[in-house]
Amino acid sequence: MASTYGNNIKITIFGQSHGPAIGLTIEGLPAGMAIDEEALRTFMARRAPGGSLSTPRKEADEVEFISGVYQGRTCGVPLTAVIRNTNVRPQDYSSLHLIPRPGHADFTGHVKYGGYEDPTGGGHFSGRLTAPLCIAGALCMQLLGEEGIAVGAHIVAIGQVRDRLFDPIAVNANDFTAVKKHELPVMDEQQGIKMRSAIEQARAGGNSLGGVIECAAVGLPVGLGDPMMDGLESRISALVFAVPAVKGVEFGSGFAGSALWGSQNNDAFYVQDGQVRTRTNNHGGILGGISSGMPLIFRAAVKPTPSIAHEQNSVDLQAMQDATLKVTGRHDPCIVPRAVPVIEAAAAVAICDAFLEQKKYR
Amino acid sequence: MASTYGNNIKITIFGQSHGPAIGLTIEGLPAGMAIDEEALRTFMARRAPGGSLSTPRKEADEVEFISGVYQGRTCGVPLTAVIRNTNVRPQDYSSLHLIPRPGHADFTGHVKYGGYEDPTGGGHFSGRLTAPLCIAGALCMQLLGEEGIAVGAHIVAIGQVRDRLFDPIAVNANDFTAVKKHELPVMDEQQGIKMRSAIEQARAGGNSLGGVIECAAVGLPVGLGDPMMDGLESRISALVFAVPAVKGVEFGSGFAGSALWGSQNNDAFYVQDGQVRTRTNNHGGILGGISSGMPLIFRAAVKPTPSIAHEQNSVDLQAMQDATLKVTGRHDPCIVPRAVPVIEAAAAVAICDAFLEQKKYR
Amino acid sequence: MASTYGNNIKITIFGQSHGPAIGLTIEGLPAGMAIDEEALRTFMARRAPGGSLSTPRKEADEVEFISGVYQGRTCGVPLTAVIRNTNVRPQDYSSLHLIPRPGHADFTGHVKYGGYEDPTGGGHFSGRLTAPLCIAGALCMQLLGEEGIAVGAHIVAIGQVRDRLFDPIAVNANDFTAVKKHELPVMDEQQGIKMRSAIEQARAGGNSLGGVIECAAVGLPVGLGDPMMDGLESRISALVFAVPAVKGVEFGSGFAGSALWGSQNNDAFYVQDGQVRTRTNNHGGILGGISSGMPLIFRAAVKPTPSIAHEQNSVDLQAMQDATLKVTGRHDPCIVPRAVPVIEAAAAVAICDAFLEQKKYR
Amino acid sequence: MASTYGNNIKITIFGQSHGPAIGLTIEGLPAGMAIDEEALRTFMARRAPGGSLSTPRKEADEVEFISGVYQGRTCGVPLTAVIRNTNVRPQDYSSLHLIPRPGHADFTGHVKYGGYEDPTGGGHFSGRLTAPLCIAGALCMQLLGEEGIAVGAHIVAIGQVRDRLFDPIAVNANDFTAVKKHELPVMDEQQGIKMRSAIEQARAGGNSLGGVIECAAVGLPVGLGDPMMDGLESRISALVFAVPAVKGVEFGSGFAGSALWGSQNNDAFYVQDGQVRTRTNNHGGILGGISSGMPLIFRAAVKPTPSIAHEQNSVDLQAMQDATLKVTGRHDPCIVPRAVPVIEAAAAVAICDAFLEQKKYR
Repeated sequence: MASTYGNNIKITIFGQSHGPAIGLTIEGLPAGMAIDEEALRTFMARRAPGGSLSTPRKEADEVEFISGVYQGRTCGVPLTAVIRNTNVRPQDYSSLHLIPRPGHADFTGHVKYGGYEDPTGGGHFSGRLTAPLCIAGALCMQLLGEEGIAVGAHIVAIGQVRDRLFDPIAVNANDFTAVKKHELPVMDEQQGIKMRSAIEQARAGGNSLGGVIECAAVGLPVGLGDPMMDGLESRISALVFAVPAVKGVEFGSGFAGSALWGSQNNDAFYVQDGQVRTRTNNHGGILGGISSGMPLIFRAAVKPTPSIAHEQNSVDLQAMQDATLKVTGRHDPCIVPRAVPVIEAAAAVAICDAFLEQKKYR
Repeated sequence: MASTYGNNIKITIFGQSHGPAIGLTIEGLPAGMAIDEEALRTFMARRAPGGSLSTPRKEADEVEFISGVYQGRTCGVPLTAVIRNTNVRPQDYSSLHLIPRPGHADFTGHVKYGGYEDPTGGGHFSGRLTAPLCIAGALCMQLLGEEGIAVGAHIVAIGQVRDRLFDPIAVNANDFTAVKKHELPVMDEQQGIKMRSAIEQARAGGNSLGGVIECAAVGLPVGLGDPMMDGLESRISALVFAVPAVKGVEFGSGFAGSALWGSQNNDAFYVQDGQVRTRTNNHGGILGGISSGMPLIFRAAVKPTPSIAHEQNSVDLQAMQDATLKVTGRHDPCIVPRAVPVIEAAAAVAICDAFLEQKKYR
Repeated sequence: MASTYGNNIKITIFGQSHGPAIGLTIEGLPAGMAIDEEALRTFMARRAPGGSLSTPRKEADEVEFISGVYQGRTCGVPLTAVIRNTNVRPQDYSSLHLIPRPGHADFTGHVKYGGYEDPTGGGHFSGRLTAPLCIAGALCMQLLGEEGIAVGAHIVAIGQVRDRLFDPIAVNANDFTAVKKHELPVMDEQQGIKMRSAIEQARAGGNSLGGVIECAAVGLPVGLGDPMMDGLESRISALVFAVPAVKGVEFGSGFAGSALWGSQNNDAFYVQDGQVRTRTNNHGGILGGISSGMPLIFRAAVKPTPSIAHEQNSVDLQAMQDATLKVTGRHDPCIVPRAVPVIEAAAAVAICDAFLEQKKYR
Repeated sequence: MASTYGNNIKITIFGQSHGPAIGLTIEGLPAGMAIDEEALRTFMARRAPGGSLSTPRKEADEVEFISGVYQGRTCGVPLTAVIRNTNVRPQDYSSLHLIPRPGHADFTGHVKYGGYEDPTGGGHFSGRLTAPLCIAGALCMQLLGEEGIAVGAHIVAIGQVRDRLFDPIAVNANDFTAVKKHELPVMDEQQGIKMRSAIEQARAGGNSLGGVIECAAVGLPVGLGDPMMDGLESRISALVFAVPAVKGVEFGSGFAGSALWGSQNNDAFYVQDGQVRTRTNNHGGILGGISSGMPLIFRAAVKPTPSIAHEQNSVDLQAMQDATLKVTGRHDPCIVPRAVPVIEAAAAVAICDAFLEQKKYR
């Protein structure tokens, strides 16, 4: 089984990179939401390829709502959106069926599906499948926005170039706007320029880079999320790890916090303007799986794009012997910039799911 | 909603720290499994308090199977196990209802449940609730063991004391046995001794420490897990983050890998004895959410125990004004050692869930 | 997998008839509900054996809440209730393992679980497992009651003795009270007396009888339930068919309505006191899976108790040859009276699940 | 939430009658199934309108697989199929928004979705949404067929004209073939002719008829299904009640059986050719929710089509006053014939779900 997530906002993502279409079904959106097509387009454009830093594959990513919308508004029933795949070049991948690309799902998918997998462009495992997740994210952000909740992310590292983190106490929606003004969504534009150089160097060398994305959600009421398996960390990480190439997720002070004393890592409570707040935010806005009202903050580690132009060692799965492989086709030297809205989308869907859960009890 | 996990192995954990009992229901275990009570007791004992490094609270953790077992074997229907809470001292927590402990779920639970939460000992949020997870883990490990799959974990850091990692290529069940021979489950006993000192120092200072646990699963066939939201990373992280105090999870090269070149992080395939293997294991045994047959490896960051003996700043939730708090009661200065089997249990349940999923298609 | 139901109110039932205990876990109840122990006891007593018409097996059915309750109120986390099995006599069933009782799950359970099933008293398949469902029902009825929704049922047939149906337009909570005043919950006490005679005749002849139960829910707002697979008919029937011995469920005019003209079966709308109502109620309060505000009405067919004192033809599963069987032990000649609250419970849980679903969108 | 079903075969149905498209996503089909397009087309044609007895609306029902298929075979990932709506005439329904059609979901949908529902042609509530269910059914039948399991249905009543039932002991796949040879799928062609007359009479009178469909599945192994909420009756009824207009479901002897003595209704076991069978089949092939190996048999009551040409009493929802309504547009006087494959599809999906569940444990 596969590609379904959520209890209250339930999404099912379908499609293959070079099949007829990709898309998703979302259940649980309230009826009457006016689809903000402009906001959707803007959001999708952030994920779309085409910038000077990414793959030359042009994907129009035109979203068609084939279910769940009536006269421009959600009508309460399952919403299905599809994006036709127009610019497919399956021949680029014709040899992959037998010689799996290192770092990709070619090998594992081949074994899992007994040789019946769709090998073209990664099939259902392609990064292209994050486009439908962005549709879900845009709609959930619209819903959360009406409740005063905003979600935003930025790049904190590309390769070994690092930018500073969000201020875990003061981060707000203005920061989300500010980072988008740069070519790369960073806090410090100087670091963004260095990141751009690093990416261009990777491209020139036929190599690739990964990085780290930090995401925050602000405006959450206290009380979203549930204990144990439905805690916010569990809900969010389950969806963030569904994004191809993510190999690590940490909340608040995360791995660094695990090296501190308790007296350093604990966040003292205080009252301000009738609200309970914490002086520091090592807990990343989540205590016991439940939102504390402080900014929710997490970081995702994105591995370097496995598609590189170098000749690599692999195996011939039919002959079962060693082989070499040179990946051609169109690929990003670094998908981190395009992954930023995808991480936001994952966070927005997970938070929206917890938000609707909590609405039952108010 | 809360405390349910899984599609094929479905677990529901219930109970409060100082309520009548804690326990769980597991659905999906095959009928006819002889419950290995000795293995269960041994496994539970690793989580139990009582060592010189942990809380003096004595919990017998006697497991009673009240459903799903007949004549010592699983009988196919929901298995329910309960552990009576015998050594409860609710008065230790009598003041917590109004002055939440920093780093705990007291505040978020209070708001979420409108003041009706069980505040004694953390209620359902207590680390004590990991005991039922260990029951599930022990049973799932038994099932996986029959398939040649073993799961083991060790401490790689306590505070700032670090041990070396598992060898990501060669790790095997012998390593799991070896680390258990030390007082703390570590690779290098010298580091274990330093960790012990650090914990004793924390206790002496009324403080606490966190750390990092590394877990591996070996013997997995290729093909477990599913793309996107049911990928192994999503399945495992959702359950690992359900363990109180876990704030980060990374697979394979994780955060460090995100700073490498693609050419460094990609794991080259080769054929050995008719099996496809990889020369390195930065992917942590998972490609596209699906097991590659290489050791599955992940690390979890555990925050320092929030219960410390220092006076801390907090708030009086009734008066809505600042207050101070001194936590009394019995607490571990470092729960990392006791969390090791819990992380193993989480991994075992998640892998077992994916294993049964795949059995449908063989 | 087995014994879990629901999306918003999620119940998991566990236990075997002659195991240590039976019980259930309910997730999704709001925090702060004062458990009405008296109402629970009264409700459970209607299902309990012990009347002159039922089995002499005495079951105290004492409910212990081991999770989810704090100081007499729900505290928001999974609620688990157990009933210890005290009066077990496994030897009564000692021969059933090999010679399955006709009409019972002995044979199918034996094959499904590979001979590892618990054969004593039907194990998990026993009617005794409806006691936990009644706990869930009582709690859900309490919740629905606060919203002005009442659920009630009565016997419309025992064998060939039939009573009249609820008035599908005018049925209300007073009817639910009225039917409980009779020895058997019927509309017309004269028919109840005939039913009692029929049951006594069955007992005298070592035989058994089935019947039909009608259940209504009143006070529902318009809009509960969802289209297609989460329609109220689907939700309710899935849980009602979980009650052992139920072999048919029909809503509104049901099977009889399928023989009418559309012009007869359609229910005309009209406005009364600012509310939309229907002149007739052949739709049983559900249109398109969604509540119409009219009384929700359904009937369940209960097969005759399969345990009869006659010698019956069966098979010896070990020798794989024909055999005869005489069931001893303590059995009801007719479980219909005791099934009445169980059907109410199933309806209450299903409606409560739909009710919480809809609360998300108000 | 809405339109998702199943644990192992998971289907999500989307679309509105007069929206751009209808379709579904199926998860859980094994990779490598060659899509039998001819069988699919034949199956879909049985549901399609166009015969002399049904609506003149012509729907091509051309199925496009946009996900999950590669080179004509399932490739293991979510399968999505869409049918474009080509012959839509929304103006036929332009007045329905305010004056709900009796017997339809217009009123309940309007209230549930706060006036934002898609009112054209019933929207998501339309019988047209059974076409995607038929796609799922055809694929599941193909899968079951490889295991020797066949599913078939016939009409047992149209209005007051009744045909005989399947022989509950001897029914087999030949019967399924035989009934399809008649214009209406019946056992006794003479009764089919009378049914046809009744339908023509209904059409002539601007009226409509309902009926009863009986469905059987043969070749099931013993052991499919699970106790309580995942019993076969629960699984099947939940999906059959998702079919618009179904208001009753009974298994085996059903409602009639509830009037028998236990000694009459119990089905005696015997051994034949090394197999356990029953002499009668009042249990409809299901004991304790689990298949017994005897033919699985159930009947579904279908209400008369609510769309009739008579003037009917309704309400003006805007003015909140009584009103009359005359439904125009293209409608079937009796949908029972077209519902036959839909009921088969529902049964096939539910059985397939239970079949894959059981495969985990073999």
